Amino acid sequence: MGSSRTSEHEVLVLLGRLLPPAVEGDVWFGDDAAVLRRPSGEIVLLASDAVVEGVHFDRGLSDLVDVGWKAMAVNVSDLAAMAGEPVACVVTCAGPSSDDIEPLYSGLVAAAGEYGCPVVGGDLSSAPSLVISIAVLGTTGRREPVLRSGALTGDRIFVTGPLGRSAAGLRVLRERVAMSAEEGDLVAAHRRPRALLAQGGAAAICGATAMIDVSDGLSTDLDRLASASGVGVVLDDVPVAAGATMQEALGGGEDYELIFTAPDADRVSRCFRDLDLPIPIEVGRAVDDPAVRRLRDGPLVPKGYEHQW
Amino acid sequence: MGSSRTSEHEVLVLLGRLLPPAVEGDVWFGDDAAVLRRPSGEIVLLASDAVVEGVHFDRGLSDLVDVGWKAMAVNVSDLAAMAGEPVACVVTCAGPSSDDIEPLYSGLVAAAGEYGCPVVGGDLSSAPSLVISIAVLGTTGRREPVLRSGALTGDRIFVTGPLGRSAAGLRVLRERVAMSAEEGDLVAAHRRPRALLAQGGAAAICGATAMIDVSDGLSTDLDRLASASGVGVVLDDVPVAAGATMQEALGGGEDYELIFTAPDADRVSRCFRDLDLPIPIEVGRAVDDPAVRRLRDGPLVPKGYEHQW
Repeated sequence: MGSSRTSEHEVLVLLGRLLPPAVEGDVWFGDDAAVLRRPSGEIVLLASDAVVEGVHFDRGLSDLVDVGWKAMAVNVSDLAAMAGEPVACVVTCAGPSSDDIEPLYSGLVAAAGEYGCPVVGGDLSSAPSLVISIAVLGTTGRREPVLRSGALTGDRIFVTGPLGRSAAGLRVLRERVAMSAEEGDLVAAHRRPRALLAQGGAAAICGATAMIDVSDGLSTDLDRLASASGVGVVLDDVPVAAGATMQEALGGGEDYELIFTAPDADRVSRCFRDLDLPIPIEVGRAVDDPAVRRLRDGPLVPKGYEHQW
Repeated sequence: MGSSRTSEHEVLVLLGRLLPPAVEGDVWFGDDAAVLRRPSGEIVLLASDAVVEGVHFDRGLSDLVDVGWKAMAVNVSDLAAMAGEPVACVVTCAGPSSDDIEPLYSGLVAAAGEYGCPVVGGDLSSAPSLVISIAVLGTTGRREPVLRSGALTGDRIFVTGPLGRSAAGLRVLRERVAMSAEEGDLVAAHRRPRALLAQGGAAAICGATAMIDVSDGLSTDLDRLASASGVGVVLDDVPVAAGATMQEALGGGEDYELIFTAPDADRVSRCFRDLDLPIPIEVGRAVDDPAVRRLRDGPLVPKGYEHQW
């Protein structure tokens, strides 16, 4: 989620000073979800994101059913990006007491049902503007999660689908009322993003070394993966969704497609085909020099595309 | 937490219509924390509470270090009330970008250290007023948690300590600047409540059949326990803390002492003594008629004492 991911970094720096280091084998902060090893041998995941009116959504452009759906989907996407499965979630909601919260909870519960992530607890309070905070508990069973930090020099870089749909959908929403079928699909991608649990799990099975979801745009999220892994990245191609621009694909974010790295492109293709999932798109490779961020012959720079979340 | 617990009931009613029933053996909503049975045999707990400026705290009466402490302690108290231990938590914080969040996080991290509940992830966002949402993950290992719903006719009712300190502390804060040592203790109880993890665990070991923490006041929280258990309650006594009033003890809330029921008062005393913990105070008994809420010869009615949280 746009601004929240950026400022997650601030919290990280602050907590780096305040907090003890993670227990050996655990990951605390710095990935899509925290990784906690239980004495039973199970590896559980814990993540939370807040969705704030005026920051992450605009009531004029999204109704509360969609806001609820999206809040749930982006949290589940954090589990997908670790190759995890949802267990359950808790939701706190603070907002004006005049709000009818039923549409919001309908959207939350619909997405919770879709992703097998039941809402098992939470809290409701009044506040001047709407803040929905979801914490998701997930698991990888006894399998290691796929972290952001595992990419190796020579690994190929993949994305699970074309990018820019959500940003393009937001542009369509802002620009006009009547829309074509293609534009309607873009708007739906913006309002009701999908969390790619099957693809995240498949990536782990198919040899992924590192993974992250596209919340802030390919350039920003790939930069995070590269920085966490200590590698550089060179992109040959950016898969731009039909109806979206290159800038929306690179910097729009909110697509919740997955970016992952793996050493063997043929194995990835075969393996996703065997699992009956769309073949991921190979977009580039990890290189030795950790300072490199390149798109073909030019620099790959995070674009400051303004997006709703 | 005052208003949030009350409106938790609203969410419960709404979600009762929207949500599928809990998986067999799990508890979703309706207790201090959700209970989730893992395939490994481990029983995990998940709870969340939001703390909202102007609803749960007033910047004029509590500094942000205390707000952070209290937000963490009340969440950990939800685990204590299930006889659980903390595993980890995630924190989302939405507030004015002008806020210095370091004091808030210092308080959070101090309480997290005190209770062994490390902050492992979270999110930071801007919002018109401060909303802190914490989700805590806990565990009872393979031991059954103590629910609200297990009290039986004839069980004795205990509280872990005298009540009304937090409400009295808030009164002292509002009334004057200079305060006596006793008043200082009351204010500390209000600003920095304790989560009674050792007592919660001890209650389970010592035969507790039902348990809840005192977040909204003895009368309200005992009513919740009795309603969940389908029993009536008759109190002989209310232990009022030094410096507090009967009304503060009955209705003040925020004490985070634990109320529990157990069949054998002697066993409870012996067992807590053996564990080197303060002996719980026996206050009454559970009776067969589920409609009964009595304090000595009169009715035990929830008092509408205004409290800060």
